[in-house]
Amino acid sequence: MTTIGVGLIGTGYMGKCHALAWNGVKPVFGDGPKPRLVHLAEVSADLAAQRAEAFGFEKSTGDWRALIADPEVEVVSVTTPNAFHAEMAIAALEAGKHVWCEKPMAVALADAERMAVAARQAGKVAALGYNYIQNPVIRHIGRLLEEGAIGQVNHARFEMDEDFMADPEALFYWKSEASSGYGALDDFGVHPLSLIHALFGGVTRVMAHLAKPYADRPFKGGGRREVQTWDIASVLLDLKNGASGVMALNRSAWGRKGRIALTIFGSKGTIAYDQERMNEFQLYTTSERSGEQGFRTVLTAPAHAPYDRFIPAPGHGLGFNELKIIECHELLNAIAGTPARIIGFAEGLEIERAVHAMAQSHHEARWIHV
Amino acid sequence: MTTIGVGLIGTGYMGKCHALAWNGVKPVFGDGPKPRLVHLAEVSADLAAQRAEAFGFEKSTGDWRALIADPEVEVVSVTTPNAFHAEMAIAALEAGKHVWCEKPMAVALADAERMAVAARQAGKVAALGYNYIQNPVIRHIGRLLEEGAIGQVNHARFEMDEDFMADPEALFYWKSEASSGYGALDDFGVHPLSLIHALFGGVTRVMAHLAKPYADRPFKGGGRREVQTWDIASVLLDLKNGASGVMALNRSAWGRKGRIALTIFGSKGTIAYDQERMNEFQLYTTSERSGEQGFRTVLTAPAHAPYDRFIPAPGHGLGFNELKIIECHELLNAIAGTPARIIGFAEGLEIERAVHAMAQSHHEARWIHV
Amino acid sequence: MTTIGVGLIGTGYMGKCHALAWNGVKPVFGDGPKPRLVHLAEVSADLAAQRAEAFGFEKSTGDWRALIADPEVEVVSVTTPNAFHAEMAIAALEAGKHVWCEKPMAVALADAERMAVAARQAGKVAALGYNYIQNPVIRHIGRLLEEGAIGQVNHARFEMDEDFMADPEALFYWKSEASSGYGALDDFGVHPLSLIHALFGGVTRVMAHLAKPYADRPFKGGGRREVQTWDIASVLLDLKNGASGVMALNRSAWGRKGRIALTIFGSKGTIAYDQERMNEFQLYTTSERSGEQGFRTVLTAPAHAPYDRFIPAPGHGLGFNELKIIECHELLNAIAGTPARIIGFAEGLEIERAVHAMAQSHHEARWIHV
Amino acid sequence: MTTIGVGLIGTGYMGKCHALAWNGVKPVFGDGPKPRLVHLAEVSADLAAQRAEAFGFEKSTGDWRALIADPEVEVVSVTTPNAFHAEMAIAALEAGKHVWCEKPMAVALADAERMAVAARQAGKVAALGYNYIQNPVIRHIGRLLEEGAIGQVNHARFEMDEDFMADPEALFYWKSEASSGYGALDDFGVHPLSLIHALFGGVTRVMAHLAKPYADRPFKGGGRREVQTWDIASVLLDLKNGASGVMALNRSAWGRKGRIALTIFGSKGTIAYDQERMNEFQLYTTSERSGEQGFRTVLTAPAHAPYDRFIPAPGHGLGFNELKIIECHELLNAIAGTPARIIGFAEGLEIERAVHAMAQSHHEARWIHV
Repeated sequence: MTTIGVGLIGTGYMGKCHALAWNGVKPVFGDGPKPRLVHLAEVSADLAAQRAEAFGFEKSTGDWRALIADPEVEVVSVTTPNAFHAEMAIAALEAGKHVWCEKPMAVALADAERMAVAARQAGKVAALGYNYIQNPVIRHIGRLLEEGAIGQVNHARFEMDEDFMADPEALFYWKSEASSGYGALDDFGVHPLSLIHALFGGVTRVMAHLAKPYADRPFKGGGRREVQTWDIASVLLDLKNGASGVMALNRSAWGRKGRIALTIFGSKGTIAYDQERMNEFQLYTTSERSGEQGFRTVLTAPAHAPYDRFIPAPGHGLGFNELKIIECHELLNAIAGTPARIIGFAEGLEIERAVHAMAQSHHEARWIHV
Repeated sequence: MTTIGVGLIGTGYMGKCHALAWNGVKPVFGDGPKPRLVHLAEVSADLAAQRAEAFGFEKSTGDWRALIADPEVEVVSVTTPNAFHAEMAIAALEAGKHVWCEKPMAVALADAERMAVAARQAGKVAALGYNYIQNPVIRHIGRLLEEGAIGQVNHARFEMDEDFMADPEALFYWKSEASSGYGALDDFGVHPLSLIHALFGGVTRVMAHLAKPYADRPFKGGGRREVQTWDIASVLLDLKNGASGVMALNRSAWGRKGRIALTIFGSKGTIAYDQERMNEFQLYTTSERSGEQGFRTVLTAPAHAPYDRFIPAPGHGLGFNELKIIECHELLNAIAGTPARIIGFAEGLEIERAVHAMAQSHHEARWIHV
Repeated sequence: MTTIGVGLIGTGYMGKCHALAWNGVKPVFGDGPKPRLVHLAEVSADLAAQRAEAFGFEKSTGDWRALIADPEVEVVSVTTPNAFHAEMAIAALEAGKHVWCEKPMAVALADAERMAVAARQAGKVAALGYNYIQNPVIRHIGRLLEEGAIGQVNHARFEMDEDFMADPEALFYWKSEASSGYGALDDFGVHPLSLIHALFGGVTRVMAHLAKPYADRPFKGGGRREVQTWDIASVLLDLKNGASGVMALNRSAWGRKGRIALTIFGSKGTIAYDQERMNEFQLYTTSERSGEQGFRTVLTAPAHAPYDRFIPAPGHGLGFNELKIIECHELLNAIAGTPARIIGFAEGLEIERAVHAMAQSHHEARWIHV
Repeated sequence: MTTIGVGLIGTGYMGKCHALAWNGVKPVFGDGPKPRLVHLAEVSADLAAQRAEAFGFEKSTGDWRALIADPEVEVVSVTTPNAFHAEMAIAALEAGKHVWCEKPMAVALADAERMAVAARQAGKVAALGYNYIQNPVIRHIGRLLEEGAIGQVNHARFEMDEDFMADPEALFYWKSEASSGYGALDDFGVHPLSLIHALFGGVTRVMAHLAKPYADRPFKGGGRREVQTWDIASVLLDLKNGASGVMALNRSAWGRKGRIALTIFGSKGTIAYDQERMNEFQLYTTSERSGEQGFRTVLTAPAHAPYDRFIPAPGHGLGFNELKIIECHELLNAIAGTPARIIGFAEGLEIERAVHAMAQSHHEARWIHV
């Protein structure tokens, strides 16, 4: 039995998600090396020790550079805030580790470019945590598109909405500062873009309209502070296959909790999906009689690989965290040199460039080619 | 008991819909004058006679000018193909009749302008058949917005999709000819625009992207002919209240049969609606506890006036044709000089101007102010 | 052009619904005799006159016997409270009129039996207002069952729920008195039973469980009064085709506004329907690949006759009142001697017998053969 | 850091599910002892070794008695076919181990009774794998009922449907043999009964109707064989709180993949749930204005403990396998002597008795008190 030494930097939302994936990937898939949970880094040694105990890591540290220097660590999960991705990922690559870094790559395009260079030079696997593309339902949609099940795709619509910034009286915090990025464009836009990449290969030109629902927000110390980011973005775009598209993003969308919706129109049918009901999709094909035509609600099933690795019965459902287990398995495939469905740093850079092109298109009020 | 003399030109899809409305409006509402079905015009005297018998009209003619010349006719329903609207509506107005004309007003903007002038000069009621704004559900949504039930509206999305042009091998017909207009923009766009006018007063600027899913279509006589219209349109826009918006239109959308969907995001909640389930809407407000928050599916109810005029019990549902009965009642209110919810020729012209601005924005690849 | 003279007794919820149907049937269908709205009866001459004006009837009366004596009346709509059905329907039949009577037939089984005898002896059409069976969606489901689209039906479930008696503090009124019948069994049960008759021919044995959610209710004059009817009923049953079934009824079902749901399981597929979304049904058939199986949401379409008589485009929707127009057309077909989809008094009596058998099965705690 | 020694017998559908739970419980919850995966038993030593490697167990065996004899094993997961539950669970209890046994307890009631006795005598935790009660959504529904959010519960309906036996030409196999039990009653019925126990404490009397959709099935060796079990069951019942109920079960329900639906009607509202959309529930309460009443679709959220242990954001969704992780955590709580939400052998026996009473009620065609 081979093993692979794992280091984890960060144990917040996504850090825990990585930890669960490293614990679950071998029992779920049964193949590949056994992850050996070697080293965990957090902002303090105490917190690191506590989390290492919970997550099953052997060693812990308050200094992430110690983790990267650990020769037993072969692959590093980078799950810290976006501002730290570039420094940590590049350091890990330069130390000869494989890297599994959360999205988005970086706030500044220059950082993302440096990351892509480092990955290319290191010759190691450098994967981004675009977990939504790993949903067996999304993967099956990809297979249907490849097979031509809905013919030639003419048009597609993408939405991402949540409501964590919907309350106008919620306190000003870092997501409203310009240093965090553009707002919905990078915070949300990269997710539909990852699906666009997985399903269509990317976008060729974009034209965005950014909006601020609330000009200012109450500040912790008193008074109000001007909001510097755009919580709403609407984008016209062309897909690489020539189809036209629309992308609408809103992180002040009351009632939406994790909506990532897509509708794909083809010459022989239509497919629709919403992440809030991530275990099903809608399929319309032209084959039925006129009195019995309709969108089918297809529940996830063993035919949607690798759902079958989790559950042998259809319709029982995977969870959000389990997408990360699939992603982890793809990462291990990539490390083993077998074909893997993963968005690496090079492709991730294309996503970042699309985001920045969108911002530019808004400011210049014109289409920008990506 | 007062009466009002009615003339009907055209008995196709919308003509029958008007005929049903003229028969039903008095029994449903119980108030106002009794429509006296005086005169019906069709392309031939025979067809006119046959339809007059079915629809309960006293006289019939193969010459629509004879109908307009009939002194017993006080109001004229114009339900012929769009190309005839201007000539007929203007003639009726000049003859001192009220006019109830189907949408869109006209293919050419100049015709729509002439119609608006004629209406103003005649001093008669000149109403357009934008029936979707009459849905009690839509009217209730309007009341909720006015009350501030979802706070300040920040962003809205509009879709209209059907699939009657989805088959790439469907024969070329007049809707693919440039003489019919732009395509989805005018054929479909006027419907969401009517809802935008009813709910928000209109748009201030637009930026459209038009697309052709199929470059050519088989021609009846053999061979293939180039498609001249755009069956798909995507539009960025700003609403009069300052909110940003998106409008997506597709008449080659397999599986959609009558989708007119809107999502309205506000500072205190969200409203969603889809015409394919026209007897319900979705409402999210911020008042619930965090564990019980969710979109409510509200079924149409007597509280959604004038649903109560049709059915005293909630959840039993109105039909598409019944929206025209409500519209007819609003028209009679307007004729009686009481406040009415109707889109007249002046407001209709604004809708036409928005459509033409969208087309211009596509061709010039820039935002156009309306 | 032939005509048929119509009399209408009662102008409440169902009375208005009949009036709308008599006004709409000719314009919608275009065939058959033109209904001549001759005579309308209400409890007072004043109310009758007012409603006759609204609904377009020529004469009015405060004495329903005068209407029945009117030689110009050929068919009588009986839409008064259930307690009056027998007397009025029998009088009309004995006077040589066709009768269109609202359901249920009567409170007492003996009255229903007398009605069936009167209808047989009169040799006139005696139809009951079971409008839900007229829904084009239900009729299409019937055709699918006949064609074997879902194979041999093994099992079916029926629900009917509304919430008008859900509030425990709502005042005691006649529906809580034993003289009104059993409660949910007759008030609601006849509707699913009408669907069972239309789709499966009826039931062969039943076993019911009746329940009272609230033992007493506040009385208008003060104090509380014991509830004598059962607002909840659950029934095991066998269908005529041998399939097992369940029927669940609840008129204290908070949130349900007009739910009449059915699920039909067959050896090759499943069909589901809910009256609250009366313009669609769910169809699952075994023909798809395992990865694309799912329930199709079929929107009502012209292929679902006679929807096409109302609207030429799919997915635009009929309303509850329009089912009565279809029923009226079937009644006219029956009068004309052509095949008609109608539940006559003889079949209606079978439905009444099933209801009474259910009540007996509850009281005797055993299966009863119908 | 304390540990607890785990033994796992069986690695099929549920065995893998236990293995995933044992691997995931500590990283997810972060508290309690660390499971030490000591020993795994399968039907052959080879298979056992292979699975031990995949699932992370230290030792493996082809002889389950060796596992039970292992002093390092403190708790035993029993996930073998139902016929083996009694023997293994009793042996483990007698060896002083805690037991976590999959449902149903046993085919024969006598076996279940012996298991309950063994558990009581051993004084160890003996828990059954009723994982659906662990869904944070179901647990939140339980809290709502306790709080009186929908008032006094009057009526409830339960369904469980799948389609793995829907094909009449599927080969005869052990589930069609009488030795497997009654059919849908025990195979499916125990699941809704577990929810009834968790939410209402149990049932007091039952009246069932069992049905066979297909009299015989093709036999592997040729010819056809008579089906001995009932794939369909319909049950009238009374809940412990006095409410009436209906339970409908069908394992030949084409299109249903994992439906476990419940509707709970109360004096102040209604709750509905369907396991096929396990990350949401429907809630109707009486507090809204009449024009805005409706069922809320509540997506699972951190307020629905212990969802927050998996994901900090609402609406992102858990999977079926993750319910077992929650169950495992409850088991560890029970072992630690803290309050736990678990169905132990004593309560499990009540569920078994209810199932057997249902079968008896069918055969005797009368209500049976449980």
